[in-house]
Amino acid sequence: MLMFGKKRWLVKVEEEKEFHTHLGIVTIGNAIGKPYGSAIMTSKDKQCWIFQPVPFDYVHKFRRPTQIMYPKDIGLILMMTGIGPGSHVVEAGTGSGALTSILAYYVRPGRVFTYEKREDFFEIARENIAKTGMLDYVEFNHKDITEAIVENNVDAVIIDLDTPWLVIHPAKQALKDGGHFVSFSPTFNQIEKTVHMLKEEKFYNIKTIECFSREIQTKEGATRPKKFVAHHTGYLTFARKTSDQLID
Amino acid sequence: MLMFGKKRWLVKVEEEKEFHTHLGIVTIGNAIGKPYGSAIMTSKDKQCWIFQPVPFDYVHKFRRPTQIMYPKDIGLILMMTGIGPGSHVVEAGTGSGALTSILAYYVRPGRVFTYEKREDFFEIARENIAKTGMLDYVEFNHKDITEAIVENNVDAVIIDLDTPWLVIHPAKQALKDGGHFVSFSPTFNQIEKTVHMLKEEKFYNIKTIECFSREIQTKEGATRPKKFVAHHTGYLTFARKTSDQLID
Amino acid sequence: MLMFGKKRWLVKVEEEKEFHTHLGIVTIGNAIGKPYGSAIMTSKDKQCWIFQPVPFDYVHKFRRPTQIMYPKDIGLILMMTGIGPGSHVVEAGTGSGALTSILAYYVRPGRVFTYEKREDFFEIARENIAKTGMLDYVEFNHKDITEAIVENNVDAVIIDLDTPWLVIHPAKQALKDGGHFVSFSPTFNQIEKTVHMLKEEKFYNIKTIECFSREIQTKEGATRPKKFVAHHTGYLTFARKTSDQLID
Amino acid sequence: MLMFGKKRWLVKVEEEKEFHTHLGIVTIGNAIGKPYGSAIMTSKDKQCWIFQPVPFDYVHKFRRPTQIMYPKDIGLILMMTGIGPGSHVVEAGTGSGALTSILAYYVRPGRVFTYEKREDFFEIARENIAKTGMLDYVEFNHKDITEAIVENNVDAVIIDLDTPWLVIHPAKQALKDGGHFVSFSPTFNQIEKTVHMLKEEKFYNIKTIECFSREIQTKEGATRPKKFVAHHTGYLTFARKTSDQLID
Repeated sequence: MLMFGKKRWLVKVEEEKEFHTHLGIVTIGNAIGKPYGSAIMTSKDKQCWIFQPVPFDYVHKFRRPTQIMYPKDIGLILMMTGIGPGSHVVEAGTGSGALTSILAYYVRPGRVFTYEKREDFFEIARENIAKTGMLDYVEFNHKDITEAIVENNVDAVIIDLDTPWLVIHPAKQALKDGGHFVSFSPTFNQIEKTVHMLKEEKFYNIKTIECFSREIQTKEGATRPKKFVAHHTGYLTFARKTSDQLID
Repeated sequence: MLMFGKKRWLVKVEEEKEFHTHLGIVTIGNAIGKPYGSAIMTSKDKQCWIFQPVPFDYVHKFRRPTQIMYPKDIGLILMMTGIGPGSHVVEAGTGSGALTSILAYYVRPGRVFTYEKREDFFEIARENIAKTGMLDYVEFNHKDITEAIVENNVDAVIIDLDTPWLVIHPAKQALKDGGHFVSFSPTFNQIEKTVHMLKEEKFYNIKTIECFSREIQTKEGATRPKKFVAHHTGYLTFARKTSDQLID
Repeated sequence: MLMFGKKRWLVKVEEEKEFHTHLGIVTIGNAIGKPYGSAIMTSKDKQCWIFQPVPFDYVHKFRRPTQIMYPKDIGLILMMTGIGPGSHVVEAGTGSGALTSILAYYVRPGRVFTYEKREDFFEIARENIAKTGMLDYVEFNHKDITEAIVENNVDAVIIDLDTPWLVIHPAKQALKDGGHFVSFSPTFNQIEKTVHMLKEEKFYNIKTIECFSREIQTKEGATRPKKFVAHHTGYLTFARKTSDQLID
Repeated sequence: MLMFGKKRWLVKVEEEKEFHTHLGIVTIGNAIGKPYGSAIMTSKDKQCWIFQPVPFDYVHKFRRPTQIMYPKDIGLILMMTGIGPGSHVVEAGTGSGALTSILAYYVRPGRVFTYEKREDFFEIARENIAKTGMLDYVEFNHKDITEAIVENNVDAVIIDLDTPWLVIHPAKQALKDGGHFVSFSPTFNQIEKTVHMLKEEKFYNIKTIECFSREIQTKEGATRPKKFVAHHTGYLTFARKTSDQLID
């Protein structure tokens, strides 16, 4: 990945390759054998940097990007659910594959089972995810998740759809006992419907969280929050599946 | 883990065991063979729930807890650095071992190398981490990290100390090229000093973020943010190590 | 007003008077003829301060306080509506008279017309407002504001009731053309209903704002936001009455 | 004032007058004798609205606008200091006269004594304030406020300058006992220096507050905070002058 200030370009390092940016041409081939963290000069004498991308860097560069949760949101999902190495996670909708490939990165060697009914997204997502090297950890379901989830006993179901409440019944079938349901929704009305249905389906520990972040501009003697700061992306609703057993 | 509303108790399930809470006695032995997500009745006829803890649940229960970052903070670290399965991470100070065990969970089968100079914390941390089952993924350094880091080529260095700027030089030695430095500090003065030193040591992509979260109380017809909401825990400063190479 | 840290006591300065606090006895009579901003020693040798209260200080001390908007909320109302010297404002419900007396302070020599249907609140509010010296600027209506507003041609109507949407029709009758409607509600569901009704009644420039505030703890070398910071008090919805005229 | 969505134009209503906007020509003369809150059609058949401006509307339209505090900030100043009808307030720097004219509006029939050392701002500010009709309540000091304040016994001193700490000594001379000092600063470093100097000069009840606001987009069934929401404008530091007297 080439980096210049906030700008990032994902580039494969190949011999003879030249890469054109608004800062001039970068002779990518010269970077062969050089360590990450090296600077490289453009033809216009600007200094760019070569770094290994983190998973979130990829998703900015996907073809046909759909709106995506922010790092603050996805990070909170990992922490609230314990999704990590070896986890099995169902996810919908696939969209451009952004969340899919990020989850795949963190569950390795586990699996992400992703659902998408739209043909066009489906093809592009596979392509996008291939670029991130995460294809081995993803299984694609070209299906409407509101009808059924074919997996069983999964650790978590993560929903980023307009109608998350329609997935709660299928999610209950797919989750292991005590497993985690998560939905991401921008509006209050969606939260209300989702929480109502979670209660109907006897989920427990239902919790909705809004997460903000803002950047601090650090300059000696002039440190302050940046002017345009917070962002409403959406609310995260978390809940846990209960078994039907009551122990006396 | 037993759960009742916001209350959580970490309990080992053993035959004959009884567990006393303010809600009455729970006959833990009865839970043997029952699925997670089951309800269990207390002697006072209250219904508690049995769930598998997520990593963050453990750290609430540690002996001698030092202040701990919140899920929002740790989740953001995972996302901004790509710390995940297989990562090698240096961390200081160990404190009660809370962040250590959470990081260990997410880097499995990687390693967390943790530094603590205080004897008393050191012993308690080992005990605490043992309870989370993460000992295999942790290496302890009973040393002052501001003097030196013995590891090389690590993916990230995470600092939660009063004087993070003193660790930047050792961190630079320990990090692989392009590796991630992260520090967590509650005050602006700490941020300023840390960012100043990061620039001196030629780190790139330096960024300070404050992350807030608040809970939404979802009740049909009465959905609203909770009254007491956000929390200042601290600021996260991120930066990447550069190599000394300039590619023409 | 006596002040010690965050603690405030409203005390009338009278000869011979003693005032008992957890910090010891204060001989109030000694303050006669002394300037505001003076320190006074208690019997336990603590130093308290004598300051003139701002309007908001009064309302903390009212008998039977109902929940009250915060300075950030009331300040925003003043600014968004131009309520100021000479304004005529309708307000409901009176509650303990807190908002009433604050508004009265800022509209002097204008008027606040306040509505309260509960007998008990009504009496207490009058007493409370008397203490603030604002009785001359307040007219009381012991009536249900959802039935009718008896005033005409007022500059603004400010509603802090559970069902603000029921007041929109009466408010339209009472407001002058172009006048301001404001309601304060803690839940989203209230906002939705209120905004819906405002549109029905052809109000324009409808806007809902949430205002947060947090305190910064300033200490040289250790400046940071306070730990417990923001607060959800409620949302403010603003709108302006339109006339029925269309100018070609 | 003409209004269309978020767009506002301040226009004097005069016979024969036409006003050109991107929405077409508005025949302002036709509005003579019509009530506020009326709609007026443009030549392109768009419907604009005629409303009386609130004080804050003016300042958006000033010649040579300097950065200005937001309504949330100014509202909080009014509430924390009790600046209202009849108050005498010193203010610096005048800048374009925005804060000056807003304060003048709220202190009527009191006075705002405003300080500006830059010749160019000084002239423009007078012109701008004249347009708001507030000239009678403003006295101009074409002076450097860090050198001296000529007024005495004022209720409050409000500072929006890069170096507020230089005004604290003069402010102490000008304030009545118990009077309010307020400064508005975007950075932490400014806050630290200001608070340090306030303590040196024995001010009491020193408090720094950050105020945020965000708009809620209310649509039936799709209510949510707006995407780009909060704003860092600056921090407000409040303090009260003490007298030198100690009462035993």
